[in-house]
Amino acid sequence: MTATTESTVAGLIADISDVGADPVRGGFTRPIHSAADHDLRAWFVEQAERRSLDVETDRNGIVWAWWNPGRLPIRDAVVTGSHLDSVPGGGAYDGPLGVATALVAVDHLVSRGVAPHRPLSIAVFPEEEGSRYGLACLGSQLLTGDVDPDRVRGLTDSDGVTFAELASRNGLDPHHIGPDPTRLASVGSFVELHVEQGRGLIDLERPIAIGNSIIGHGRWMLSFRGQGNHAGTTLMHDRSDPMVAAASTVSSVRALARRTTGARATVGRLDAVPGGTNVIASRVDVWLDVRHPSDEVVATLVASIMDAARIAAADEDCRVTLTEASVSPTVAFDVDLRDRLRRVLPDAPVLDTGAGHDAGVLGEHLPTSMLFVRNPTGISHAPEEHVEGADAETGAVALADVLADLLVR
Amino acid sequence: MTATTESTVAGLIADISDVGADPVRGGFTRPIHSAADHDLRAWFVEQAERRSLDVETDRNGIVWAWWNPGRLPIRDAVVTGSHLDSVPGGGAYDGPLGVATALVAVDHLVSRGVAPHRPLSIAVFPEEEGSRYGLACLGSQLLTGDVDPDRVRGLTDSDGVTFAELASRNGLDPHHIGPDPTRLASVGSFVELHVEQGRGLIDLERPIAIGNSIIGHGRWMLSFRGQGNHAGTTLMHDRSDPMVAAASTVSSVRALARRTTGARATVGRLDAVPGGTNVIASRVDVWLDVRHPSDEVVATLVASIMDAARIAAADEDCRVTLTEASVSPTVAFDVDLRDRLRRVLPDAPVLDTGAGHDAGVLGEHLPTSMLFVRNPTGISHAPEEHVEGADAETGAVALADVLADLLVR
Repeated sequence: MTATTESTVAGLIADISDVGADPVRGGFTRPIHSAADHDLRAWFVEQAERRSLDVETDRNGIVWAWWNPGRLPIRDAVVTGSHLDSVPGGGAYDGPLGVATALVAVDHLVSRGVAPHRPLSIAVFPEEEGSRYGLACLGSQLLTGDVDPDRVRGLTDSDGVTFAELASRNGLDPHHIGPDPTRLASVGSFVELHVEQGRGLIDLERPIAIGNSIIGHGRWMLSFRGQGNHAGTTLMHDRSDPMVAAASTVSSVRALARRTTGARATVGRLDAVPGGTNVIASRVDVWLDVRHPSDEVVATLVASIMDAARIAAADEDCRVTLTEASVSPTVAFDVDLRDRLRRVLPDAPVLDTGAGHDAGVLGEHLPTSMLFVRNPTGISHAPEEHVEGADAETGAVALADVLADLLVR
Repeated sequence: MTATTESTVAGLIADISDVGADPVRGGFTRPIHSAADHDLRAWFVEQAERRSLDVETDRNGIVWAWWNPGRLPIRDAVVTGSHLDSVPGGGAYDGPLGVATALVAVDHLVSRGVAPHRPLSIAVFPEEEGSRYGLACLGSQLLTGDVDPDRVRGLTDSDGVTFAELASRNGLDPHHIGPDPTRLASVGSFVELHVEQGRGLIDLERPIAIGNSIIGHGRWMLSFRGQGNHAGTTLMHDRSDPMVAAASTVSSVRALARRTTGARATVGRLDAVPGGTNVIASRVDVWLDVRHPSDEVVATLVASIMDAARIAAADEDCRVTLTEASVSPTVAFDVDLRDRLRRVLPDAPVLDTGAGHDAGVLGEHLPTSMLFVRNPTGISHAPEEHVEGADAETGAVALADVLADLLVR
């Protein structure tokens, strides 16, 4: 077993700091199966192999790197890891921090001479952000069967490329994606470390937190259809302009969410078709993200937004349809696992998060928890996202402590 | 001189009906220097060479195909033609109709045995729609000096590619773009035939019209800047979301334009950066197209829209800047040339148009006119744009009549 004991989390993150750098948006753009994503996977495989981990890619494109020095049978495994894909123009830490920290935590386990009673794997989940196919946590949802593989095969990206086509081009048989109950049953515990995406640890002046729950969230697409036409020759009263209906609905999203305590509702993406300056759009797709600790409040808020959208569409002689892309109820993490982490890390506060994670998907199927590392800007999904080097190393020690505890008892 | 007398306008349009077909938007997407644009230019050159026209590309990328059987000196030339680029998801006729009709009109001149006293050229202007660089009639504006070549060299497309880079890659020396007074002075008259983009000829039940003026229009970009952040972890009251400010402004554009008789104001393109569903945007660019017969009204309306944008931005703790992309005052075509066309085509009504054209740019510098061919849907810049085959052939005969009149007197 040769391990590179000199690696630091900051050093590993620095290794990939030129991969998928986005010259226009700033930050990083690393969608699934982009050149950047392939470079990141190759980097991960190389790092895993340096540590003599056994690397495999499963039928859903999840990469598993096994640390199993005792050649134990693969059951009741402890799994950590995160994802390497990003939102467009995202930060350096959302995803890669959990992967890099897991690699350094393995170095710590090796240098401590831990002799595990359970196999350990670092998992890298694909399309966690859903930035290419609009469906967050796609890899973990395929693994657990939370999403229908037929639906996934037919999803199209903004270039019209289906997931099935993309999978085929990248060596994944699209007929074989979907639930993998044997693999899922072999996992005994999952712990995902992630950069914090809010201001909780700033306010508490602590470097590390333990996750308590992921508040419920969902994504919808409101598609407004009108009549595409020439911007110069079509009089105002002859128009049915879906951009006008969409804009009115964005204003309603803001107003309705402000009225709902604890709700967060966002339109971060709006696609006009055809999208020319001198063309009245024929269709405008508005992507809606809504979150609230109460699943009922999420449903009520979306229904109110849709009512506002229908009125706005009718005012413009347009039509609107609502498509649910994904809905995740609030996920409370396993209480026993959480309490075990609290015993290992007694100084770490326990926090809820408004961000979705693969841990939220797996948490519905097996004992799961999360660790959060302080983000001194409080900003995420943007270039300003940050983690101090010292906090990152504290995170690696904390993760190693947690894993050691899970592996040897 | 060999001419292909069997060509019809509809046949030529059918020849290129698979070039740049857009599977997502419908219609055609043919931006400058795309593969589709290169295929269209190659098609044009081949058609010109079949007719033994002398083809040259000038320093601004305008293609000129000369019919000059008497080898006359190139002065007081009669020029016709149009463009081959399209808006995203545009129709089959906006641009190509004028080019295809010009080719068929040359066939008519040859078969009629016309012996021209002036040289004739079919010109194909690049980037008429401005769909890649945001600046309409780019080729003709470079030729006339209406746009500063330094500014054009620095324009960037949505991939961050400058015009200078794109020109270099495509065999055009970016240092040599710009005003070409000698070439401009050699043109005596310009007549552009174009599909009508409104309902004027439908209402009049006529196949062909003569252009009277192009109403003033301009393009601006309103750039709203806020703070990019995570859609799930950023509370509503902690946000400065430029999408909200942009949406409010789109609503104001609609309301302000409706209150201004004769005005047309459109937002057909809105770009969110980074543009992810689960990301509060850091910047939203709103592209604004405003047109009115009075240039003062255009300026006043844009100022009112900017006032509304500033208020909307301040409400969201965002900033907004306004960039003028292009402003074209109302262009009345040459009265003598118009009256000459009326004598040749006594049954054709005379119409104003709200659409910009290269004829509008050239019309400020030399005697210019236009012919419009009926569009039975009244829809343009969309797949529904149409021209009946019989109307297209009527257009070719009308253009040949006009050209013959100009060439022999």
